[in-house]
Amino acid sequence: MLQSKLLTKISKTFPEGEESKNAKWLIRGGFIAKSSSGVYSILPLGLRVLRNITEIVREEMNALGSEELAMPALVEKKYWEKTGRWGVDVIYKTGNEENKKDEAHDFEFGLGWTHEEVMTAIANNFIQSYRDLPKSAYQFQTKFRKEVRAQGGLLRGREFLMKDLYSFHLDEKDLESFYLKIWKAYNNVYKRVGLKTIVAEAGGGDFTKQYTHEFQVLNTAGEDLVYYCSKCKFAQNKEVFKPENHKDCKEEILNAKAIEVGNIFRLGTRYSEAFNLKVKLESGEESRVVMGSYGIGITRIIGTLVEEYSDERGIIWPKSVAPFKAHFINLRKNKDKEFKKFFALYEKLNKNSNEILFDDRADKSAGEKFAESDILGIPLRIVCGEKTGIKLEIKERSSSKFKLVSYKEIEKYLAV
Amino acid sequence: MLQSKLLTKISKTFPEGEESKNAKWLIRGGFIAKSSSGVYSILPLGLRVLRNITEIVREEMNALGSEELAMPALVEKKYWEKTGRWGVDVIYKTGNEENKKDEAHDFEFGLGWTHEEVMTAIANNFIQSYRDLPKSAYQFQTKFRKEVRAQGGLLRGREFLMKDLYSFHLDEKDLESFYLKIWKAYNNVYKRVGLKTIVAEAGGGDFTKQYTHEFQVLNTAGEDLVYYCSKCKFAQNKEVFKPENHKDCKEEILNAKAIEVGNIFRLGTRYSEAFNLKVKLESGEESRVVMGSYGIGITRIIGTLVEEYSDERGIIWPKSVAPFKAHFINLRKNKDKEFKKFFALYEKLNKNSNEILFDDRADKSAGEKFAESDILGIPLRIVCGEKTGIKLEIKERSSSKFKLVSYKEIEKYLAV
Repeated sequence: MLQSKLLTKISKTFPEGEESKNAKWLIRGGFIAKSSSGVYSILPLGLRVLRNITEIVREEMNALGSEELAMPALVEKKYWEKTGRWGVDVIYKTGNEENKKDEAHDFEFGLGWTHEEVMTAIANNFIQSYRDLPKSAYQFQTKFRKEVRAQGGLLRGREFLMKDLYSFHLDEKDLESFYLKIWKAYNNVYKRVGLKTIVAEAGGGDFTKQYTHEFQVLNTAGEDLVYYCSKCKFAQNKEVFKPENHKDCKEEILNAKAIEVGNIFRLGTRYSEAFNLKVKLESGEESRVVMGSYGIGITRIIGTLVEEYSDERGIIWPKSVAPFKAHFINLRKNKDKEFKKFFALYEKLNKNSNEILFDDRADKSAGEKFAESDILGIPLRIVCGEKTGIKLEIKERSSSKFKLVSYKEIEKYLAV
Repeated sequence: MLQSKLLTKISKTFPEGEESKNAKWLIRGGFIAKSSSGVYSILPLGLRVLRNITEIVREEMNALGSEELAMPALVEKKYWEKTGRWGVDVIYKTGNEENKKDEAHDFEFGLGWTHEEVMTAIANNFIQSYRDLPKSAYQFQTKFRKEVRAQGGLLRGREFLMKDLYSFHLDEKDLESFYLKIWKAYNNVYKRVGLKTIVAEAGGGDFTKQYTHEFQVLNTAGEDLVYYCSKCKFAQNKEVFKPENHKDCKEEILNAKAIEVGNIFRLGTRYSEAFNLKVKLESGEESRVVMGSYGIGITRIIGTLVEEYSDERGIIWPKSVAPFKAHFINLRKNKDKEFKKFFALYEKLNKNSNEILFDDRADKSAGEKFAESDILGIPLRIVCGEKTGIKLEIKERSSSKFKLVSYKEIEKYLAV
């Protein structure tokens, strides 16, 4: 991609009124734009990061044998009423409240902030026999939550992207076996996107009365407080924390702010009861389906990555999710032989994958180009200028070391 | 994909209360599920079709040099007020109407039914000079419209997926040049997904006062009425039709019901005026940016394809968008040598792309399997049974001819 053709530009200053580090850098770099408090547009550069994350999550969910679908945002009142969740605080409502006489308003909807209700209703069409179990399905879907305070940039929004997966089982034992598998898949996801998580026990909120598990990234930007042990695996969210649960280990309990990037819930039969989802057993008897639900905050991961990986000069994206693999920067004033060689390398490497950003702008100084490149946070910066001669200068965003290397070597770097 | 593992099952009967052909077949086949009137979930099989369509559209939009982004559904009142569209009938409103004292409700939102407002506000951050033009950006986004009558299955929903693209130009001339390019790109899209369209002049609705162009598929399921000439390119939507516009051609004007699958709008400066979007010219003077917007109804295309391509036995997907390339059907009762060979071929061909559905179910008769295969509408059906010997039976969904072919030949069919 030629940088001169990008829809967005990098701003010289931070946006006004944004306090969180992630929103500051992401807006300044042109990854996102603020639309309202807690509501952001994902701009082309941000969408590239988002795609890389969703692709990793998709691979891990598919590896569990789960199928992708897409449920609606307009979820009718009757669904929420079955589970007693029409009255929750976070639900945005729309529809017929304005004018009950108008046929168009004959429906009251709550904007989907989670999809247990719709998913269980769908499952009812396809799960009838024990032979139909286990099954699971997931979606990447925009969720809406009427937050009292939308804050922290992409960490807590009123509209955000989530991966939510729902699983259906014959009994608690089968749920438990899947629960451990998805726990492992979540560990894979966070490792692959570059986040170190600890798994904390937590309460079930509006979802379940059982203990649930939260995947937490220890970071001062987080709103959660996690109590954990650095020696054993003990970790609990503030709301459920009891020191006596840690009596077998003598290590001191620490606590730290954390960002919840995912959670897994054993739902039991709460939703299958509400929607009368049951299967016929081999014996002819009927049995309630046992369910689980599992969320990953996709846009929240983007925000968390910036909180974790940035310095005073900008973002430092992990390679697996970076918007581009490499940032080629041309400093040559003339379209001479060396420029042509550099551009030809870009064209060759970029042809199939479009994973290289080429700074072709003539109206920016070397200093401006470098500063902007640091803000964007692309893992590799490759420079061609008068001073690099027949070689190219390569620098990792995460390091301060420069190196002059031959064209042959550059190709090796970029093949990784 | 093994059919026994699919989340969905094919229903023996049509859904109750659905009148439109597309909803009947799509629900019965397990492509979609109805959530409320005009609101559908896209199930895994449907999502495969939707992905194939979006990928075609994405390729064509990228080829225009356009960049993909994602704007929010929650669009604050202040945006709509700038263009006088807060009062339109189709807008779903949510937010603070319930309780103005509550901080969480400090915002009033209209659910995005189109995104000129948000897009122009974003452009304002990045378009300042004539050098920044032309630019364009697009998204695949869920739109919400408060339809008086949601009808026609996926043809007119309250929530649906659209591709919307917005372009920014220095002047009318540059807009015109882009308008013709995207017109051509739209022709490519519809050709590639298998739809024959005619382009009709129409009014601009809430968008513009200029003539716009609608891409229409002549089909009795459509709500539009199009007047057109089969000899010259004359075509007008009912609302703007005037016979005197067709005076240079002597052919009779026909009319027919049609489904609008896309539209292109010259917006002029209406939105750039509302959001004060202007550029500095080389002369130092300022100039209003000229805009266009361009929509393709993605979920509506799915519905239209079923209206166009189905018979009394089910759907007949065009190859380019089919959920799977081929439907392998095993009729052998035992896992004998021939079954193993058949399964090995499936595994080999399916490994990288997962584009083959393998009917491995033991509890269905040959007749049931064939009937279900016809409903699903996968272009190629390949059968291995006691009667096919060391060969396989191949049949196209669109034809009634069967053929026994060797394994070698099958691979040729599937390489296409």
